[in-house]
This record gives sequence, structure tokens and C-alpha cells, in this order.
Amino acid sequence: MHQIDTSIPHGHTEQHMRSSEILTDIVIGMSDGLTVPFALAAGLSGAVSEAHINLIWIAGLAEIAAGSIAMGLGGYLAGKTEIDHYNSELKREYDEVERVPDREKEEVREFFSGLGLSREVQDQAVDEMTRDKEKWVDFMMKYELGLDKPDPRRARKSAFNIGFSYVVGGLIPLSPYFFVSDGIAGLRISAAITLCCLFVFGYFKSKLTGVNPIAGAIRVMVIGALAAGCAFAVARLIQS
Amino acid sequence: MHQIDTSIPHGHTEQHMRSSEILTDIVIGMSDGLTVPFALAAGLSGAVSEAHINLIWIAGLAEIAAGSIAMGLGGYLAGKTEIDHYNSELKREYDEVERVPDREKEEVREFFSGLGLSREVQDQAVDEMTRDKEKWVDFMMKYELGLDKPDPRRARKSAFNIGFSYVVGGLIPLSPYFFVSDGIAGLRISAAITLCCLFVFGYFKSKLTGVNPIAGAIRVMVIGALAAGCAFAVARLIQS
Repeated sequence: MHQIDTSIPHGHTEQHMRSSEILTDIVIGMSDGLTVPFALAAGLSGAVSEAHINLIWIAGLAEIAAGSIAMGLGGYLAGKTEIDHYNSELKREYDEVERVPDREKEEVREFFSGLGLSREVQDQAVDEMTRDKEKWVDFMMKYELGLDKPDPRRARKSAFNIGFSYVVGGLIPLSPYFFVSDGIAGLRISAAITLCCLFVFGYFKSKLTGVNPIAGAIRVMVIGALAAGCAFAVARLIQS
Repeated sequence: MHQIDTSIPHGHTEQHMRSSEILTDIVIGMSDGLTVPFALAAGLSGAVSEAHINLIWIAGLAEIAAGSIAMGLGGYLAGKTEIDHYNSELKREYDEVERVPDREKEEVREFFSGLGLSREVQDQAVDEMTRDKEKWVDFMMKYELGLDKPDPRRARKSAFNIGFSYVVGGLIPLSPYFFVSDGIAGLRISAAITLCCLFVFGYFKSKLTGVNPIAGAIRVMVIGALAAGCAFAVARLIQS
């Protein structure tokens, strides 16, 4: 769930991508928020006596606090790192274009040669391309290094979106345990609600990425069920 | 921590990227594994009485089971989704090149025009580029859609690497609680060990991404400390 591509295409698709970036953040935060606290609470429900059912939601809320900070801040720092990395590479490219222009021109030529263009067109393209240093460096950044200019405001917003979605997602599987006095009863309601949410959520997530939505929804639900089942088994094994 | 760029550059850097992909997986798995179980155990250490200290590691191990499955399987499915998405786009591009070749040629021309090439060179490049349909589609996939061909074996390996790293990372902050009878004593040792690990880990992570390693190490450590502090505060607040 963490390797969703958040690179930003250029030109006319930009507006469209802004809203899909927010959706990506929500998808990342919610999917972890639904899955991990659900599985943790499920695990504890099998290991905690009736007298200590409050420990399920103490542990669950502690996990939500920890997870939302780790994911939110983690996302923020990943964004910051991306910007730092871009800027340091940008500086290096400007420097190289100044210091070793022939080598850099050769790299541009290799790009066009890789596209299958004839030597003649390659040379003409390199010649026109490298007249404007700014365009030249932009080109190297994008097509030699594969780096898109990151949006500086994005890191902060992304952190907030992911962290907040994690909290919302995490409260859903936890809420039934507030209203029951028996862990296993809580687990039954929690599992029913959470697996439904994971299905709906997996459905829309798959639509976003252009995969068969029903198959995607089932996949996401199965991950949650497996994680919860495994946590339950681990907790039961230790406790007995 | 989840937005590390795992796109695969082409050509001579490929071999280099293979090992850095494994490192990326380990970095993703370990950073979450160190942070979240650490913070959860820290949170519980402030809320659990001496008689129930075993609940700290029951909860911790349940969290590790849930988290490693959610992250590992999540990573696997993200990889699978990427492959499905690539293949469906590839099919569409082949179809479009066949059905609306003029519109697709115009898109190729726009790409070269965006590079700042003259109309003459644009036309020649488009002409040469579109002679070979396979190269043409490859070009559209890469430069119009920004999609690199994903490695099918990667999804499975990635899942295993991330899941396993999460388990290893998670056992580190949990281990002190096995040897003490008092939650707060366990927390002290756990915090000392984990913050050191997060520092070392943040140092190498930053080296990988080309950021100042000391600053990066401190950042990673601070996230862990904040997450643990917040989980501790939440658990204490509810319990009292």
C-alpha cells in the first residue's frame, strides 16, 4: 500500500493530479488505519479478560496516536527529502553543464539515440536543445535523472492528510469495543464493520488505479482479514 | 516513509538499482517496524500494572504480526497493481497507435516541441520515431505516461523484504519488556536502544537518498520519540 506512484505529470493533467494526490494520501492513510488497529484489537480481544477490556482500546488508541504520527510525519519528511534531493541534483546539473558541457551534450545525444533517431536528427536536436541552458538542465533533470520538480507545499499537506486519514480509519474498527463488555463480541462487530469498509475502500482504490474494482476490493479485504487472523493467533498462542 | 521513489531508471544504472531496491524495502520495513511497535509498547508501559506486563508484549507481537502482513502483502499487491496498470495502458497505446495514428503522432511532436526543438527537427524526429511501432509505443509509455516497465518478480520479493524487515525492526524495541517486571523500566531500556537504532538507521537512509546524514538521522529519531511520547500520553490520559 505504500508504493503508490505520486509523481506529478506535467501540463494539462496537472489540475487533475492535484485532487488525485489528496485521494492518494487518503487511500494510504485510511488503508493502514483500517487494517492495523483492527488487527491489533482483534489480537488483543482473544487475549484479554473481561475485566481488562479497556486495555483493547487503550492499546488501540495508543497505536492510532503512534501510527498517525509515524505515517504523517514520515510522509512530511519524505516530501522534504524529495525536495532537498531535487535541489541538490539541480545544482549539480547546472555545475556539470558549465564544467563538462561536451560530456553533458553526449548524454543528451544518447537519449535521442535511444529513441531510435538517426545520427543527423540526433545532432540537430542536441544542437537546438543545448542552446538554452535552463531548458537543457530541465531536460537532464527530467529525462536523464527521471526527477520531476516537487511541490514544496505538498509535503505539509500530505502529512496532514495521511495522519488525519489514519486516525479516522483507525477509529472505525476500534469503536465497537467501547460498547461491549466482552472482547470476542467486540471483535465480531468490529470485523463485520471493518471488512465492509475495507471492501468499499478497496473498490474505490482500485477504480483510482484502473484495476478491476471487485477483484481489488476482495484483495484489500483479504489483507485485513489475514492480518487480524494472524494477530489473533499470535496473541492467543502467547497467552495460553 | 512511504513515498520513497521506487521507479526504475533504465540502461547502465539498472544493476545498481536492483540492490538499492532491496535497501529501499528494508528501509521502509525497518523504519515502520522500529517506530510503531516501539511507540505502542511505550504507550502501554504507562497504562499497564506490573501484574499485566505480559500484555505489553502480547500487544507488541500482535502488532508486529498485523503490521508485517499489512505492509508485506500491501507491498505485494501494490506491485501487482502496478504491473496490471502497465499492461492495460500498454494495450491501450498499441490500440491507439493503430486506430488514431495521427493523434498519437501529434502527441510525439508535442513532446519534442516541449523540449524546445525547431518545427523542422520535430517533424523529422516524429517521422523517424513512428516508423517502428514497438519503439513508438515504448516511447509513449515512458514519456507521455511516465510509466516504466515493472519487474514481475519484484512484487513477491518486495513483499518478503518489507514484511521481514518489519518483524526484525519490531522485535528490537519489544525485547527489553521480556526481561523486566516493571513497564517503565522496560520503557527506559527500549527507548535507549530504539532511539540509537533509529539514529543509525536514519543516518544510512539519508546517505541513500543523498541528504545530510546527521540531520536525517536526527529527524528519524525525533519522529520515533514523538510517536512514542504521544502514545504514552494518550494511554495515560485514558487510563487515569
